[in-house]
Amino acid sequence: MTSTYCAATYRCYDEKADFDKKALSIAVGLTVGSWTDLPEAKKADMERHLGKVISVAVHEPEGPGETAAHRYADIQIAYPDVNFSRDIPALLVTVFGKLSMDGRIKLIDLSFSEPFLSAFNGPKFGLQGVRKLLGVPERPLLMSIFKSVIGHDLPTLREQFYLQALGGVDLIKDDEILFENPLTPLERRVEACMEAAAAAERETGQKLLYAVNLTGPTFSLLDQARKAINAGANALLFNVLAYGFDVLNELSRHPDINVPIMAHPAMAGALYPSTYHGISANVLLGKLMRLAGADLVLFPSPYGSVVMPREENIAIKHALLTEQWADYGFQQEADQAGAAPSRPTLLLRSSFPVPSAGIHPGLVPLILKDFGSDVVVNAGGGIHGHPMGTVAGGQAFRQAIEGCLAGQSLHSYALQHPELQAAIQAWGLKE
Amino acid sequence: MTSTYCAATYRCYDEKADFDKKALSIAVGLTVGSWTDLPEAKKADMERHLGKVISVAVHEPEGPGETAAHRYADIQIAYPDVNFSRDIPALLVTVFGKLSMDGRIKLIDLSFSEPFLSAFNGPKFGLQGVRKLLGVPERPLLMSIFKSVIGHDLPTLREQFYLQALGGVDLIKDDEILFENPLTPLERRVEACMEAAAAAERETGQKLLYAVNLTGPTFSLLDQARKAINAGANALLFNVLAYGFDVLNELSRHPDINVPIMAHPAMAGALYPSTYHGISANVLLGKLMRLAGADLVLFPSPYGSVVMPREENIAIKHALLTEQWADYGFQQEADQAGAAPSRPTLLLRSSFPVPSAGIHPGLVPLILKDFGSDVVVNAGGGIHGHPMGTVAGGQAFRQAIEGCLAGQSLHSYALQHPELQAAIQAWGLKE
Repeated sequence: MTSTYCAATYRCYDEKADFDKKALSIAVGLTVGSWTDLPEAKKADMERHLGKVISVAVHEPEGPGETAAHRYADIQIAYPDVNFSRDIPALLVTVFGKLSMDGRIKLIDLSFSEPFLSAFNGPKFGLQGVRKLLGVPERPLLMSIFKSVIGHDLPTLREQFYLQALGGVDLIKDDEILFENPLTPLERRVEACMEAAAAAERETGQKLLYAVNLTGPTFSLLDQARKAINAGANALLFNVLAYGFDVLNELSRHPDINVPIMAHPAMAGALYPSTYHGISANVLLGKLMRLAGADLVLFPSPYGSVVMPREENIAIKHALLTEQWADYGFQQEADQAGAAPSRPTLLLRSSFPVPSAGIHPGLVPLILKDFGSDVVVNAGGGIHGHPMGTVAGGQAFRQAIEGCLAGQSLHSYALQHPELQAAIQAWGLKE
Repeated sequence: MTSTYCAATYRCYDEKADFDKKALSIAVGLTVGSWTDLPEAKKADMERHLGKVISVAVHEPEGPGETAAHRYADIQIAYPDVNFSRDIPALLVTVFGKLSMDGRIKLIDLSFSEPFLSAFNGPKFGLQGVRKLLGVPERPLLMSIFKSVIGHDLPTLREQFYLQALGGVDLIKDDEILFENPLTPLERRVEACMEAAAAAERETGQKLLYAVNLTGPTFSLLDQARKAINAGANALLFNVLAYGFDVLNELSRHPDINVPIMAHPAMAGALYPSTYHGISANVLLGKLMRLAGADLVLFPSPYGSVVMPREENIAIKHALLTEQWADYGFQQEADQAGAAPSRPTLLLRSSFPVPSAGIHPGLVPLILKDFGSDVVVNAGGGIHGHPMGTVAGGQAFRQAIEGCLAGQSLHSYALQHPELQAAIQAWGLKE
């Protein structure tokens, strides 16, 4: 029988640990518990449950300015699929439950076996599905965020929505801190905003997705989503990390949820930024979001105020988009035979990357250089704060995207496009 | 109308920030979005939605060895209850959603208004309820963990269970990495273990709670719990952080869940240990676990291998046990009148603290000194690894507890108790 494994990679900091020993203690401790003191007959039974050390790469502190505190190892461990059920909580508790509390250790990568992956549907729409809904097969999409939502009534929200839509944005998302409230309750908010979307579409001829914030008690989320969808919502925003990846998975795979789900990264900063602890952004906002079925994933851009290093953004993009995503499928027999481990092709749809925060039209060339066309350009202040108003704010972004796609310098493109020109004058241009 | 607020305290590290300005930007940015540019008439409307800066305590790096990197401020912000629904995801997304990604900032405390608290039931049994189920009104409880579970069949598990129970433990918990599996499926595991519990009770005359691991997809957890309870389970173990606090809350408040829930801290190390990021242990494993309804809460002890500093343990204990828990109830009117803010009495039951990892009988005096009698002494290797076997392991712990309660030195108490004596010889004694 072939044993299959999911694998986890950790970065462990320790001034003097024997990292090979530590790797072995993880592989044994988080699976069968003990190994060397097992009777031989028992070992044969337990072999299929035993974790395997795949690799231990020690970084000795030899660089300029490095001290013993910079000594670390990247340790990759394979965990037999037979040990855990095929859901994200089981995988995470197995690979980083107790271990997360064991010194300076960060989970920096995960890879999934084909059998494990086969239990997941991933995004129901995915990047191509979202494009199809909008009728925009190729160009980068444009999304905008309400300027402010708390304390506003329906007419005010509707007006904000209408102006954003008129500017030519493809998606509008609720603020993630807008919960069920008497001023703008879910169903009436959806109705008002979708009405504004229809009114704008009559002007622009353009379709639009409105991601309404799905909130409230976990076991009522399906009902809330159904209400929103019945009221006309054509997308959902969801604060995945405040609920758990498995809740996203439950929602996304449910047949009644027939609209794309946009994952918000709220709370992610509690988990990814530390060097020594937590879960790296490519796993947290990349692989796990896609596995759990997010059709679009927001994350802090490297361009604006709330920043994430560019290489982490690229790693997220890779996790969300790359076809050959599950790049490690450890199989015991193949490994023992010395053959290359099989590399399962990922069957999940890709998720739309949405780098967010601090985006203005003059950053569009950088965004497209980093992400290509398969990206959602997402702006708040960069639209509402436009010197000529919200509508012009959307238009300036669309012009920036058009200019880039036409291969033009935005400096010259802006000469024929006053909205873009004004945006560049206000916020600058990086090409 | 009186406005009520929940409050969050953050520790922000920054070498040169104007922390007063930063505090104001949090209070405004995470509530109404903008303030100074609002028309006066609008300000009157929005006042009730506006966050308030409660305090800013700057720590300038003046101590020995401190550099600019040690400069921080503790900032407390009050958030109007009217802005968010009364559930944990809404509170967390409001106070630490976007903000978690904004530089070096850690959520170090939360306090809840009476209206917010009133939406929660907290622990259904709580400390006193667990004592009542066991018929142990006063003494510290003893819990044990299976030695190893993965790859074992029902007879082996049953035998392990029986030996632990014979030693006089009050609670036995599943390993948190034991998921639904063909060797020891949930219902049959419960039946086998509860049968062993009954057999042991006939010997010891002592009741026992078995916390079976509740796992699987989120929307099936209630059904799984019902199955476990129907099969005889009298407690549940739950990996809260792999699912989300709200799932615990949904389970604990559900009428069908008529057994105590034990919260496991798996994944907590991804969140609490960093100085600069995440959520401190007293919030994560203390206040939020109790709010969400955990009857017992495991957390890394300061005594053993997986360590947490002692002061963090004491803060967790305080959060789980203290009656006057909600020590800050900011009320706008009272504050404006200069009166002391009202201090709501917490109506939630307390949760049993279970400091875990690396516990042996010789540590019992320390544990009782730190926690008093309202603690669960929890051991794995300290029971199974006893030189005279698992049964003696449990007995040694019970003897250590009895000796401490009798006010005796365990050195002398052990002279009459060979199991305790052997444990002290094996692992030492700290008094």
